[in-house]
Amino acid sequence: MNQCFGCNTCKSADKPLEGYIAGLPVETSHHRVENQSTKCAFGLQGVCCRLCANGPCRISPEAPRGICGADADTIVTRNLLRAVASGSGCYIHIVENTALNVKNVAKTKGDIKGIATLDRLASIFGIEEADVYKRAEAVAETVLEDLYLPEYEKMRLKEKMAYGPRYARWKELGILPGGAKSEVFHGVVKCSTNLNSDPVNMLLDCLKLGISTGIYGLVLTNLLNDIVLGEPEIRFAPVGLRVIDPDYINIMITGHQHSMFTFLQDRLTDADVVEKARRAGAKGFKLVGCTCVGQYLQLRGAHYTEIFDGHAGNNYTSEAILATGGIDAVISEFNCTLPGIEPICDELKIKQICIDNVAKKANAELKEFETGVSEVSLKNFLGGSWKPLIGLIVSGDIKGVAGVVGCSNLTAGGHDVLTVDLVKELIAKDIIVLTAGCSSGGIENCGLMTPEAAQLAGPKLRAVCEKLGIPPVLNFGPCLAIGRLEIVATKLAEELGVDLPELPLVLSAAQWLEEQALADGCYGLALGLPLHLGLPPFVTGSKTAVQVLTEDMKQLTGGQVLINGDAKESADILEKIVMEKRLGLHI
Amino acid sequence: MNQCFGCNTCKSADKPLEGYIAGLPVETSHHRVENQSTKCAFGLQGVCCRLCANGPCRISPEAPRGICGADADTIVTRNLLRAVASGSGCYIHIVENTALNVKNVAKTKGDIKGIATLDRLASIFGIEEADVYKRAEAVAETVLEDLYLPEYEKMRLKEKMAYGPRYARWKELGILPGGAKSEVFHGVVKCSTNLNSDPVNMLLDCLKLGISTGIYGLVLTNLLNDIVLGEPEIRFAPVGLRVIDPDYINIMITGHQHSMFTFLQDRLTDADVVEKARRAGAKGFKLVGCTCVGQYLQLRGAHYTEIFDGHAGNNYTSEAILATGGIDAVISEFNCTLPGIEPICDELKIKQICIDNVAKKANAELKEFETGVSEVSLKNFLGGSWKPLIGLIVSGDIKGVAGVVGCSNLTAGGHDVLTVDLVKELIAKDIIVLTAGCSSGGIENCGLMTPEAAQLAGPKLRAVCEKLGIPPVLNFGPCLAIGRLEIVATKLAEELGVDLPELPLVLSAAQWLEEQALADGCYGLALGLPLHLGLPPFVTGSKTAVQVLTEDMKQLTGGQVLINGDAKESADILEKIVMEKRLGLHI
Repeated sequence: MNQCFGCNTCKSADKPLEGYIAGLPVETSHHRVENQSTKCAFGLQGVCCRLCANGPCRISPEAPRGICGADADTIVTRNLLRAVASGSGCYIHIVENTALNVKNVAKTKGDIKGIATLDRLASIFGIEEADVYKRAEAVAETVLEDLYLPEYEKMRLKEKMAYGPRYARWKELGILPGGAKSEVFHGVVKCSTNLNSDPVNMLLDCLKLGISTGIYGLVLTNLLNDIVLGEPEIRFAPVGLRVIDPDYINIMITGHQHSMFTFLQDRLTDADVVEKARRAGAKGFKLVGCTCVGQYLQLRGAHYTEIFDGHAGNNYTSEAILATGGIDAVISEFNCTLPGIEPICDELKIKQICIDNVAKKANAELKEFETGVSEVSLKNFLGGSWKPLIGLIVSGDIKGVAGVVGCSNLTAGGHDVLTVDLVKELIAKDIIVLTAGCSSGGIENCGLMTPEAAQLAGPKLRAVCEKLGIPPVLNFGPCLAIGRLEIVATKLAEELGVDLPELPLVLSAAQWLEEQALADGCYGLALGLPLHLGLPPFVTGSKTAVQVLTEDMKQLTGGQVLINGDAKESADILEKIVMEKRLGLHI
Repeated sequence: MNQCFGCNTCKSADKPLEGYIAGLPVETSHHRVENQSTKCAFGLQGVCCRLCANGPCRISPEAPRGICGADADTIVTRNLLRAVASGSGCYIHIVENTALNVKNVAKTKGDIKGIATLDRLASIFGIEEADVYKRAEAVAETVLEDLYLPEYEKMRLKEKMAYGPRYARWKELGILPGGAKSEVFHGVVKCSTNLNSDPVNMLLDCLKLGISTGIYGLVLTNLLNDIVLGEPEIRFAPVGLRVIDPDYINIMITGHQHSMFTFLQDRLTDADVVEKARRAGAKGFKLVGCTCVGQYLQLRGAHYTEIFDGHAGNNYTSEAILATGGIDAVISEFNCTLPGIEPICDELKIKQICIDNVAKKANAELKEFETGVSEVSLKNFLGGSWKPLIGLIVSGDIKGVAGVVGCSNLTAGGHDVLTVDLVKELIAKDIIVLTAGCSSGGIENCGLMTPEAAQLAGPKLRAVCEKLGIPPVLNFGPCLAIGRLEIVATKLAEELGVDLPELPLVLSAAQWLEEQALADGCYGLALGLPLHLGLPPFVTGSKTAVQVLTEDMKQLTGGQVLINGDAKESADILEKIVMEKRLGLHI
C-alpha cells in the first residue's frame, strides 16, 4: 500500500499487539513513526512562529527575534497558550453537549439513572425543584449559563465546586476564569499576531483555562453523565482485541461523548433491530469500545452486557482493531479519532459514520446527533469512608498516590511504553496508581488492572491489594474522569484538613498527546500538584516558560512540571516528592 | 545593540522612510528581515503539524502522512481554519468591545454624535425606542445577544444586514454562521488533534467564519463606532513622520479599537491636564496616530485638530516613529502592536501603557479600559447618489473598482512595495482604488492619495479625478473599514439589480499579514469576490485546498483566490477579471 509498509513498527508496551501490528497487511500509525522520526528542532522547542505572512520565523542564537520582534519567550508561550485554549475548548465542547443531553432527557422525561448525583448537584447549585425532570433541567441550565458568560464575568459555579483553600489561592493570583467559552475565545485571540507579548501573563492564562477545563470540562461532565447514565462501579471486564465476537455485527465506537451513544445502546437491542441483524446472518449487534467512550462503557458495562463486547483499546490501537476484519462500522464523535482509520476503512469497506461535525472524517457520512460514570465508587468500596485509605497512607502501607493519566503516544519509548514502565516502577515503590484516559487503556491491556498484578507491587501495597482483593492500579475510565481523581484528592485533603499541594499525591501524563492533555495539565498545576511529563510540551526554547513551569509555579500554586522520559528516573523523582510531602504532614 | 544591527534593511515603498530606518541607531523589524530570510518550506506550504506530542510531523513525498494518518490536505486546512478562526476572534473581540462602549455611553447619557447611523441601525433591527439613549442601548444589546448565541443557533442580524442574493446563496451552501463567538470556539476545537479530517468541510467553515467576521466584526463595528464618534469625512491631512510636533508631549496610539480613545481625546485637552503639560515645559498633549486607530482619527481629524497631530504610519513604521525620539509614551490596545517596540521603548525610556489585556506587552503597564467611523460619505461626495459612480463605470471612464486592503508586510518585495506598485498599475489601467487597513498607510505615505496623484492614473480615470478634485485612490481608513467597502459594493449591486460577484469589482490583500486578514479574506470569498494575495496563506502543500480556493470557489460563492507576487502580472490578471465582469453586464 505504501513504501513504508513492511518497515519497522514502533515498540508497544502491549507485546501481543506489537506483534499483531507488525504483521498487518495495512499501514497504521505504528508504521508511520519511523518515517516521521526526523523531528524539527525549532518545532520541538516551540520557537517556530507562523502566525503571519512574514513568517515562518524561527528563533536561533543568530536570530533571537522574529521579524516583528517577538522573542523565544513570546513565541513559545503564545504557542502554548493557543494549544491550551484549544484543548480547553475540546473539553468545554463536551460539557456543553453533555449538559444539553441532560436537558433533553429531562424535557422528554427520559431515563434518569443517577438521582443521587442529580440531588447532589442540585444541592450544591442551590436548586430546589420537587419534580425530578425540572430539577435535572435546572441543573443543566445552570451549567450552560455559566459556560456562556462573557470573559469579564466570573463563572458562578466554580466557587461552589472548587476546594476552598484552592479557590482562595486562585482568587489571590487573579486567575479565576470568566465564562469558559469566552475564556477559550480570549486565549486564542490573545496569541494572535502582534497582540500579547508578555510570557508570564500568557502562562497565567494557561492556569485560568486549566481551572475552567477542570471544573467544567472534567468534574461537571462526569457528574452530568452520571445523572443520565448512572454511576460506574469497580469491576473486572475483558479488554483487548479478543473482545470482538465475529458472530455479531460489530460497531466500533470512538470519541469522548458517551451520552451520545445512550440512544444507540438501547435501540440496538430492540427486537426489530436484532431481527434485522439476524436476517443478515448475525446474532445481533455489539458495540466494541475504543478510546474514551469505550472506557465509559467499560465502567458501566454491568448494565450493558447484552450490547457491549468490551473495551478493545486506545487511540493507537484503533487501526489494529479495524484491521482484524471483525468490525463492520465505526461511529465516531470526537477525538481521539485518528485520520489513519480512513484508508483502512476504505480498504476493508468498513462504514464510517460521524455524529458530531467537529470531528467529521473526509470519507465518512455525517449524521449529526441532535441535542445531546460518579467517581468510581471507590469510597463505597472502602466501606463508605475515606478513612481507611487515609489510614493506609498514614501508616505507610500506601506510600502515596500517583494519578497516571492522559493519552497514549508513540514517541516516548513507543506505544504506552513509558506509561506502563512508570506504573510498574511506582507500584513497586508502594505508591498506588489511579488512572484515567488512554493511558489506562495501555495499562489494562498489559494486565496491571487484574488482582494478580498485586504481585508486581511493593510488599506493603501488595499486602493491601491482596487483603482488599483489588489491583494496584485502579481505573477511573475515560480521560474526562481525571475530574474524578480531583474529587478523590479533595476528599482526602478535606479529611486531613490540608490544602491539595500538601498531599502525598503526584500526577503523571507520561505520554501526553493532545492539546486537551495540556489543558488537563494546567488544571493539575492550578490544583497545586506536581505534574510529570515524558516529553516537554514544546516549551524548551523559552527560558522564562521553563523557569515558570518547573520552578516559579511552586510559589504560585504549589504545582510544578517535571519532564523526564526515563521510567526509573521519573519514578524516583516522584517518590522523592511523595516522601517530602509525607514529611510535611509528619507522617 | 544586536549583531544584526547595521545589516541591510528590507526595501520600503516609502523611500524616505527606508533611508531613515537604514540609518537608525536601533534595531527594527526592517533590520530583522534578513536574519529571518531562510524560510522553512514545510511551514510555507502549511504541511507541518505540531498539534500533538508525536509531532512535529511534516509531509513530504517520502512521508505522505503524519503519524496519526493526517495527510497534507487535512494538515493544511486544519492550520488554515485555526488561523481564520483566530483572526475572526480578533474582529469579534473588537465588535464586542465596541458594542459595550455604545451601551456604556448610552447608560451614562454620554455624547452620541451619530444619530443618523443609530436611527438606521435601529430601523434595520426593528427597534422602536423614542429615547435616544434607550435606542442606543437596545441596538448595542441586540448585537451583543447575537454574538453570544450558541453555534447551533443561527445569528439573527445577518439576514437583516446581508445583501439578499448573497444571503440566499449562503443559506443554500449551509454556511450561515451561528453565534460569532461560538463559531470561533467551534473552529478552533474542530482543528484540534484527531478531530476533523475533512478538508472541504473545514474550508466551508472558513467561509462561515468569514461571514460572521464581515457582518459583525467589520460592518457592525464601523456602524457602532459611528454612533458614538460621528461619521468620517473625505479630507486631506498630513501623514508620515513629519506629523510629530516636538513642542508637545506626544502619545503614540496603536491598535484597532478607536472607541477606547474617545475619553482620552477629550480629557487631554481639558485645562487642568494641559496645565500639567505646561508645567513640564510642553505646550500640551498631542496624539500621534499609528496603525488603524491612527487611521480612525485621521478620518475624523476635522473634529480633533486640537489634540491630533496626524497619522504617522502603519505597523511596520511604528518602530521608526518611536526611534525619532519625539514620542513620550505609547498607548496600545490590540494588534498590530509589534513586540519589536519593546526594546526601543526601553532604550529611549518611552512609557508603554496597554489598555486591553489581550495585547499586554511584557514591559508595559496594564491599565484596563473599563468598558467604551459611517462608510466615508462617498455617496454624499458624489452628490447624494450612487448613480454618478455607476454612470462612470458604465461609460468606461472608470473601468472597474479595486479594493486594495489589508496589512503591510515586509516579505512581499519589502515594506508596502507590492501594494504600492499594484495600486500604481491599477490606476494606470483606469481602475479606481478604494483602500482600507495598513495597506492604506503605505499608499498614503507614498503620495497616492493626493489630488496630484491623478497624474499617475490612466487618461480616463485622470479626467474623472481632475473633474471631481479627488485622488485616484480613496481611503476608507482602518482595516475594520473594509466593511465599508462591502457597503459600497452592495449599494452598487442594488442599483444595478445584480449580485455582488457580477460587479467589475476585485479585492487585493496584496501584503496580507495577520490571521485577521485571512478572516477578512474569507468574507471577501463568501461575498463572491475575486481576492488577490501576494503571498499564499500557507496552503500550497494541499492540492485540495488550492483547488477549492482558486477554482471550485467560483462555483460555490463566485469568489476565488489569486496568488501572484508580481505587481504588473497581478494588475493584468485583475484587469482581465474586471473586463470579463463588464462583458457579463454588457457594459
